[in-house]
Amino acid sequence: MQIHCYEHPLNEKVRIYLRLEHLLKQLHHSCELSDPWQYTIFFNALFDLLELIEQIPIKNDLANALNNQSIKLKVWLNYDGVDPIAIQSLLDNMSHAQKNLLAAPRLGQSLREDRFLSSIRQRFSIPGGTCGFDLPALRYWCQQPLDERQQTMQVWLDQLSEVDQALNLWLHLVRQSAQYQPQSAHNGFFQNDASLSCLLRIEIDASYGVYPVVSGHRSHFSIRFSPYEEGSTVATNIDFKLAIC
Amino acid sequence: MQIHCYEHPLNEKVRIYLRLEHLLKQLHHSCELSDPWQYTIFFNALFDLLELIEQIPIKNDLANALNNQSIKLKVWLNYDGVDPIAIQSLLDNMSHAQKNLLAAPRLGQSLREDRFLSSIRQRFSIPGGTCGFDLPALRYWCQQPLDERQQTMQVWLDQLSEVDQALNLWLHLVRQSAQYQPQSAHNGFFQNDASLSCLLRIEIDASYGVYPVVSGHRSHFSIRFSPYEEGSTVATNIDFKLAIC
Repeated sequence: MQIHCYEHPLNEKVRIYLRLEHLLKQLHHSCELSDPWQYTIFFNALFDLLELIEQIPIKNDLANALNNQSIKLKVWLNYDGVDPIAIQSLLDNMSHAQKNLLAAPRLGQSLREDRFLSSIRQRFSIPGGTCGFDLPALRYWCQQPLDERQQTMQVWLDQLSEVDQALNLWLHLVRQSAQYQPQSAHNGFFQNDASLSCLLRIEIDASYGVYPVVSGHRSHFSIRFSPYEEGSTVATNIDFKLAIC
Repeated sequence: MQIHCYEHPLNEKVRIYLRLEHLLKQLHHSCELSDPWQYTIFFNALFDLLELIEQIPIKNDLANALNNQSIKLKVWLNYDGVDPIAIQSLLDNMSHAQKNLLAAPRLGQSLREDRFLSSIRQRFSIPGGTCGFDLPALRYWCQQPLDERQQTMQVWLDQLSEVDQALNLWLHLVRQSAQYQPQSAHNGFFQNDASLSCLLRIEIDASYGVYPVVSGHRSHFSIRFSPYEEGSTVATNIDFKLAIC
């Protein structure tokens, strides 16, 4: 049995955070690859990420989000049966991440000012615009030894470590805040309330051949399971697991 | 001694062909990768390529270019010391590629009409716009077994086989049409005539720490070697190899 996993944000903040996480994952992953085309994943993700953080004031927003999660987490210290050391350790990490984030210079500023990066950035939005003759400096860079390239990529990625760390912590806490519950969709449709929630997580058996299309915002959401293969039918009852975080 | 290689087109046609080759290389390469993010290379290259071939009438142009190369190649059959069987085999390949190209339906039409591809294409131009929640159908696709994904990518890539084959042959012939000659740039500068030529190929020792910036068009060109590291100086004499194809 193969399980497919999906996530859906219920507000704009989580939407942005998931996008950033998606791009940061690509950056981390491509940093370590030895494949000759890994640089296309890296630079595409990096320039997309810079564009995102230029448009939206992530820094204070994310610091506040971490603070709100800390307040929620502190409540748990009063309950029996919880591990106070584990919670305190998490709270310390969050406090640390929040301070680092607030103390960091303007996010991505050093990357925007990097001579090499700014010389190649614009051409990444032109179809096929990153050929060797378009960007001989990039061509030079690509011909450098692998370890030097990986090292440079790591240095660039390190410029984003504060947002990376804070984002990972926040998303980790949100994801851990609810457990998967078994649910059933009738005729491919399911709906529910989700007051105070911000993220849906769905696990579904791949053999149904469907993917979830979620609509809704904060207080209410609906999931319609669509068949991946055109024209194929959707099972009358689809059992899946849902976590409303 | 590590050698860096560069190419520069001297006309618009070769400029487009090199872009297409650059994208096709990424498609071939990413088709065979098992890396979980390989799909970003594949789809970015595929959609860039579709955009290029929508803008420019490649098909007849490339068929004519192959025809012109065939005429040039036939002249060689009259010379002593050449291998007539090798040349005839190449001519047959070219004739075959040209016929296939002209007989092919509109380039990329089946890819443009593909339900899945057209449903995801637009979001690839949005920064971070290809998250699982943006494109649950793509998320479904990414969770399919590797061999199925590779097979589907190969089927998509096969739709471009006529242009791929013709382009490879033409560029191969152009690249073989001239041999590298030793040259020297004084104070980082070199210029020359290039009547009837369409492509420059440059080989340079990496230890110079420079990359070539070429300007010029058809009859005349100049190469300025720029230092990769900001502020570093360029050697008074730079020895390099140049093929004017």
